Amino acid sequence: MKTLKMLEELASQLREIQRINSAASVLSWDQETHMPAGGGIARAEQIATLQGVAHQKLISTDTERLLKTSVDLTTGQPLDHDGELWDEPAQSLLREVWRDYSRAKKLPSDFVIKLSRECSLAQQVWAEAKEDNAFADFLPNLRTVLALKREEAQYLGFVESPYNALLDVYEPGATIAGLRPLFAQLKARLVPLLKKIQNSAVRIDDSVLFHSYDTARQMEFGRLVLIAMGYDFERGRLDLSAHPFTTSFHPTDVRVTTRVHEHDLASCLFSCIHEGGHGLYDQGLDPLHYGTPLGDSVSLGIHESQSRMWENCVGRSRAFWRFFYPVLQQTFHHQLRSVDTEHFYAAINRVKPSFIRVEADELTYNLHIMLRFEIEQDLIEGRTKADDLPDLWNQKMKEYLGITPSTDAEGVLQDVHWSFGAFGYFPTYTLGNLYAVQFYEQARLEIPHLEDEIAAGQLLVLRRWLGQKIHRWGRMFTPERLAQRVTGVSLTPEPFLRYVERKYGELYKL
Amino acid sequence: MKTLKMLEELASQLREIQRINSAASVLSWDQETHMPAGGGIARAEQIATLQGVAHQKLISTDTERLLKTSVDLTTGQPLDHDGELWDEPAQSLLREVWRDYSRAKKLPSDFVIKLSRECSLAQQVWAEAKEDNAFADFLPNLRTVLALKREEAQYLGFVESPYNALLDVYEPGATIAGLRPLFAQLKARLVPLLKKIQNSAVRIDDSVLFHSYDTARQMEFGRLVLIAMGYDFERGRLDLSAHPFTTSFHPTDVRVTTRVHEHDLASCLFSCIHEGGHGLYDQGLDPLHYGTPLGDSVSLGIHESQSRMWENCVGRSRAFWRFFYPVLQQTFHHQLRSVDTEHFYAAINRVKPSFIRVEADELTYNLHIMLRFEIEQDLIEGRTKADDLPDLWNQKMKEYLGITPSTDAEGVLQDVHWSFGAFGYFPTYTLGNLYAVQFYEQARLEIPHLEDEIAAGQLLVLRRWLGQKIHRWGRMFTPERLAQRVTGVSLTPEPFLRYVERKYGELYKL
Repeated sequence: MKTLKMLEELASQLREIQRINSAASVLSWDQETHMPAGGGIARAEQIATLQGVAHQKLISTDTERLLKTSVDLTTGQPLDHDGELWDEPAQSLLREVWRDYSRAKKLPSDFVIKLSRECSLAQQVWAEAKEDNAFADFLPNLRTVLALKREEAQYLGFVESPYNALLDVYEPGATIAGLRPLFAQLKARLVPLLKKIQNSAVRIDDSVLFHSYDTARQMEFGRLVLIAMGYDFERGRLDLSAHPFTTSFHPTDVRVTTRVHEHDLASCLFSCIHEGGHGLYDQGLDPLHYGTPLGDSVSLGIHESQSRMWENCVGRSRAFWRFFYPVLQQTFHHQLRSVDTEHFYAAINRVKPSFIRVEADELTYNLHIMLRFEIEQDLIEGRTKADDLPDLWNQKMKEYLGITPSTDAEGVLQDVHWSFGAFGYFPTYTLGNLYAVQFYEQARLEIPHLEDEIAAGQLLVLRRWLGQKIHRWGRMFTPERLAQRVTGVSLTPEPFLRYVERKYGELYKL
Repeated sequence: MKTLKMLEELASQLREIQRINSAASVLSWDQETHMPAGGGIARAEQIATLQGVAHQKLISTDTERLLKTSVDLTTGQPLDHDGELWDEPAQSLLREVWRDYSRAKKLPSDFVIKLSRECSLAQQVWAEAKEDNAFADFLPNLRTVLALKREEAQYLGFVESPYNALLDVYEPGATIAGLRPLFAQLKARLVPLLKKIQNSAVRIDDSVLFHSYDTARQMEFGRLVLIAMGYDFERGRLDLSAHPFTTSFHPTDVRVTTRVHEHDLASCLFSCIHEGGHGLYDQGLDPLHYGTPLGDSVSLGIHESQSRMWENCVGRSRAFWRFFYPVLQQTFHHQLRSVDTEHFYAAINRVKPSFIRVEADELTYNLHIMLRFEIEQDLIEGRTKADDLPDLWNQKMKEYLGITPSTDAEGVLQDVHWSFGAFGYFPTYTLGNLYAVQFYEQARLEIPHLEDEIAAGQLLVLRRWLGQKIHRWGRMFTPERLAQRVTGVSLTPEPFLRYVERKYGELYKL
């Protein structure tokens, strides 16, 4: 069998390209965390230059020469003309490199540079527009980015909808046709469940979350939980940014950010746990495969499954708080001494339609995504114009969640994604929610007494399991295959639906 | 006359290259300020990759094609084959681009990448070795870097000494033959002056500088002085690092760092002012010329003149403290209320041979440099081995300053420079000291009542003058020409010697 060793020259070229991409990620991280306001325009140009260089290297004759000795460049099939087969890691590497290469090959370098520059700029304008609640200020940039993304879909080519071309970038294999029934199933069971909860006699009081909490101590507690999860601060950092995110420059340098509000205990707490879940995945990738697909995360949906599992299945569970609540009480003695664990557990799990996606409960969260999924399709397919977004947004919020944002800042401007051109990204959040529970169910089957371990503050057993089952494999398997390998079946919404029905049924005495 | 407009395509190529260099600078800044410890090896590779890409682009056939339409590539002479002459900015740009290009052309890209990688790694090892006072830990890396720098000198070619090849990188036109008499003149007058001071009946008590000072307040005061100097925080930041430095990614994003010690008031204070002087230069470069030599600083000596002028001519002057001392007293009321301005002025100007260059007084500072200048030459010319450095260092410290470091950490390990291969860098510090006073004398002649302005806290008049005379010109003029334009004469140690003789003569009643 031919092995990875025979692909070392190709891998070396890929590492070189990845180092440039990693440098661009450092510049982006810096832009979101430390860059002085005046530096934005120059920074956009610098990132665009790096992405242009990386793109040119990926589609260069050098890469092509290295790739075509092993792969049929038109079909992506590995070549075995010497009669000897490639082993599985080598086959996976070739499959995924070809995927990246042939996609990149369809995009002119000038276009890549322009798109990168416009997205960096738009992201900065978005941040200001959100602060000023001024959608009109952001509109010209959004129009530009939208037009470029529609152009990108044309370059990439697609079946049925240009939106499919963009979806596939974030979630290999995902299509509108595959997602629609998934969302329909969710809607069919989540909307009635939400109704039942709203009609329930149980009223959860979560006001304790909105007392005053020292922000430095909130950060300390977030850091403590990250350490307990196994997030390695020798290979990572925790910083503040407007929109929490995780970024990785190498498995030895993976950074998470959070935000912190004095009067919102849940915000910093759960964004730390959430980003920590992402961070564990990136720290768990094999550094020896850095730069090649085998050292890269498999898809955004799988990535999100890691963050959502830690945030929700673990971080909003009774078991977790059995250990951590006393610690939290010690940290905020004054505010929490007379609040018991059960009260706190209910507070952090209160179901309530609200405006902000990242602060939504586990149930309504997917309705936020559904709304974005539908709007994105309309935008990319040209049925809706950027100008109409605020109205369309508010109308769908009313329809799915029964509430209307009073400002665009808590409406259409809340998320950063569209500003940097990430159309097709949102559905991966829902995929993440579903994968999270599907994987977690499996973890409970395979790890003896998992919940007891968690209740004893022993989170590392779960990290180890995830590392072995998911992190270490990089892009060896497609998302579909990975799910099958880990859980025996493809993605299904059943575990998630069972989980929310059980969890909220009990909490709301349905 | 042919103008810059005709060089726009070349300028665009240079901007592209500079963006990659700027990205590498962001990665270095991050390495020194925020990077988690584990990220060092990957970071070294990433920076090396960027520098390799920038180097390849600079010596590419694209650049060559653009350059050779306007310049004779072997002599560097601008071509006027159409009979029309280039105007001065265009001539300067061509002269300097050719300088950079022909230097880069002599270095193989593989060598550039290797040098960059080894320097990044050595710098990290140095930082640990310094902390552990373990020269032996650093020695293997130092040997590697030294060998590479000697190799570099061979690639570059030189007259008389390979050290000249390295010097010229930092200070165009500087040579051993030019520097030696300068150092001899300094030695001839500084050593007797130091003797006189040591024999003076005046004893300056600077113990007030070593009381306990809240570090956060020290940082606040440093920030206040930076703002007064005109350092623009919309286009800059102040951070902490082990070794204070200034870096620029564009005139709209120029960052300074400092360090802060509870029991050393002068350390943070003067490193803020010093780096602020560098920062003003970089913020004062013309953003329209970013990426071309006209938007770049002219030499390290001139750069250092800006930092040393602010640090010493301004920051250690009576005029400055007439305004700022009451503010400092308010900030540290408890420690300073019974210390008068004159006492404080004397304390910050106390002459005392000491171990650490960056904390040396203005007089002994140049002796620190002389020692390094001599050792560097010996290392590069092969008369001394890296292994012998600690002994050689201590022996020269004894000879020039009359003291012997008790550890390598306060001896040969104190400076970062050699770790990242910056041999030939140190002499620019002394050039900076001399230029600083020469420029400052001129500023006093040209700016009405400069010292009164400073005494009223009005530092912006000086920044404006420096901007007009020096910053805005980039590399339009050579260091030599610039000095002549600004002061009417070439570099001369006379103003500096007069300045220290007068200042210390008065302070020590000589």
